[in-house]
Amino acid sequence: MITITTDFGEGDYEAGLLRGVIWRIAPEVQVVDLTHSVTPQDILEGALLLGRCTPYFTDETIHMAVVDPGVGTQRRGLAARLGRQYFVGPDNGLFTLMLQKAETENLPVQFVSLENPRYWLPEVSPIFHGRDIFAPVAAHLAAGLAIDQLGPSINDPIRLFIPTPQKSGHGWQAQVLHVDSFGNLAVNLGLENLQNLKNIRIEIKNTVINSLVKTFSDGKPGDLVALMDSSNHLSICIVNGSAAKFLGVGAGEPVSVEDISSQQFIESKI
Amino acid sequence: MITITTDFGEGDYEAGLLRGVIWRIAPEVQVVDLTHSVTPQDILEGALLLGRCTPYFTDETIHMAVVDPGVGTQRRGLAARLGRQYFVGPDNGLFTLMLQKAETENLPVQFVSLENPRYWLPEVSPIFHGRDIFAPVAAHLAAGLAIDQLGPSINDPIRLFIPTPQKSGHGWQAQVLHVDSFGNLAVNLGLENLQNLKNIRIEIKNTVINSLVKTFSDGKPGDLVALMDSSNHLSICIVNGSAAKFLGVGAGEPVSVEDISSQQFIESKI
Amino acid sequence: MITITTDFGEGDYEAGLLRGVIWRIAPEVQVVDLTHSVTPQDILEGALLLGRCTPYFTDETIHMAVVDPGVGTQRRGLAARLGRQYFVGPDNGLFTLMLQKAETENLPVQFVSLENPRYWLPEVSPIFHGRDIFAPVAAHLAAGLAIDQLGPSINDPIRLFIPTPQKSGHGWQAQVLHVDSFGNLAVNLGLENLQNLKNIRIEIKNTVINSLVKTFSDGKPGDLVALMDSSNHLSICIVNGSAAKFLGVGAGEPVSVEDISSQQFIESKI
Repeated sequence: MITITTDFGEGDYEAGLLRGVIWRIAPEVQVVDLTHSVTPQDILEGALLLGRCTPYFTDETIHMAVVDPGVGTQRRGLAARLGRQYFVGPDNGLFTLMLQKAETENLPVQFVSLENPRYWLPEVSPIFHGRDIFAPVAAHLAAGLAIDQLGPSINDPIRLFIPTPQKSGHGWQAQVLHVDSFGNLAVNLGLENLQNLKNIRIEIKNTVINSLVKTFSDGKPGDLVALMDSSNHLSICIVNGSAAKFLGVGAGEPVSVEDISSQQFIESKI
Repeated sequence: MITITTDFGEGDYEAGLLRGVIWRIAPEVQVVDLTHSVTPQDILEGALLLGRCTPYFTDETIHMAVVDPGVGTQRRGLAARLGRQYFVGPDNGLFTLMLQKAETENLPVQFVSLENPRYWLPEVSPIFHGRDIFAPVAAHLAAGLAIDQLGPSINDPIRLFIPTPQKSGHGWQAQVLHVDSFGNLAVNLGLENLQNLKNIRIEIKNTVINSLVKTFSDGKPGDLVALMDSSNHLSICIVNGSAAKFLGVGAGEPVSVEDISSQQFIESKI
Repeated sequence: MITITTDFGEGDYEAGLLRGVIWRIAPEVQVVDLTHSVTPQDILEGALLLGRCTPYFTDETIHMAVVDPGVGTQRRGLAARLGRQYFVGPDNGLFTLMLQKAETENLPVQFVSLENPRYWLPEVSPIFHGRDIFAPVAAHLAAGLAIDQLGPSINDPIRLFIPTPQKSGHGWQAQVLHVDSFGNLAVNLGLENLQNLKNIRIEIKNTVINSLVKTFSDGKPGDLVALMDSSNHLSICIVNGSAAKFLGVGAGEPVSVEDISSQQFIESKI
């Protein structure tokens, strides 16, 4: 199976073209469009999205991603084996989260630089490596080609800096990772960080949120709420509005999350 | 084959995720996105759309639908066999038309409440039952699981009230069922109701339309026209405009449709 | 494999319906949405898009296209074998480029008029031939039906007039073929016309562009640039803007492209 993630925009015929290219080489492979709506050239958004989606796909899935502001420059193209899945795309950090995860779990990590034109289309447009390089490479992998046929191994793929939260007294010092197109703030805290906090207190830019809601519909339009999004990460949102605009914040903004019950418990002991 | 109908919006990566979940369980199944553009939380729109589309799909197709304002509440999840096809989604009336049709035609009707977590993903987000419950359940059905393994049978699924037209002197007393995003008015009359009417006179909110056009292009921009839509239901539209806004009407508005030739025939007899 | 190109708009459920119809007849066939975003009723845009995409698909692919302002009128429906691929859609010129190419290369050209209702759906809506005629016909072809079963052969399919560039002194007298939704101007010159020109000078409506850029990112927002698009055709664009609006031009506008180095060489000889 091959998944495709791009910033081409929905409805662009170029996304359909990729299937033509893939199926000429690997007629039986299943192809899924993950999304073509990544904010144009937003590598971090693409990387976070892949980090959230790829665990739902089966082993041996090949994820092709084209968010590629450097197309036509000297940036390398990559194929990678990270854990139990494959990845194909530009060398710009799109696969950072899967790389980190494979390293953490001691799973296989292999990167090759796409330098063997034998597995590309005969003509390569400087502005459409998705069609001319990445799609045929993904298809050849799906058809059983060994990854090391695609080019030399490398060990210095570009990594995005994705900040991790720091432990604080009774919780975490975290930050906004990404602002989506609705103005929702994705915070670098997952369920594993928060599940032991009983009475949560979230502070961002001098504004306090005192609980998590389960769904948007627990708030009224205009309410500032915090909830675990569908990938089980903390999200700060205005119901039917933009938290980024309301708070005047962007990626990098500090977010502190504390367990008030622990604090009160300790204070009462004193 | 599995079809997917949601209100996620086009280009949302969550629609792509559903395929990942499905193909992990049933690697060979064909998956079709019917649409992800149902007006958010508009159950009636989803129900009408399914009613119009499902007859074009083959027997044994599994239709998964996620228009689910109640996600995260106590509303049940359902799998159903209605006639010759299967349905999976929340218990909120989405499948009412197919249920009515199966009852009318004396075809099989079976509902089960999704209570057996063995066929869900191991972790269930309170805001994404589409991914964590409905997609894996649909995939297990596609892979051959018997529907009664999914949970206990129930016989009280929620039904939407979908009004039916009433016979009048020489035609029908009907009503607007739904207003689409263009402001077109879907009326609860099908070809079977209208094919014997020769000279049609349609009245809605004191406005009269004296004929059916075949296509939009038979009218000029701004014209109020009536035509049979592609599902062979009566639709009242402003060419390149909004009939809902022009007439100031919404769902529930009465529509009378008469055969004038019959009337005149009778009058001339008198 | 069947590809689908329409002007239905992304997210329209009617595009999903086509798969239901196709898979009832040909359950194993692979289906690709090329795009549903052709500008409504813009036959030339559909024709150009097919001309650019079809070469990337394998032999025997069946391309179904529904950009069909004449639906419901007397216009014919067509199935065609052009070169090594098949085409199904209305007889309005959508397939002109593939026809020209097959003629130029002396490859097979066969058109049949879709007149045999045996291969249509039993009921045909006057406004949805895509679902009721073209999709089932494409599916029957995919399932192995001989094209001449679909109706009588014809040799007068409608052709679009697609102007070709004329050789001039040291280059080409060309023209704008099409303006896309961003206001980019597609010029009827391909790489084969331009690759021998060293120092290019492009003139359109008294405005001169003195070089080609490789990608948009070589210009600043607001710059008027010329580049080879991903299908290797000349495109004149405003970075992040509309060249059509900036220059006040549309399809048909003359574009002259000269090789200045040749000219200077000759002048210096004199």
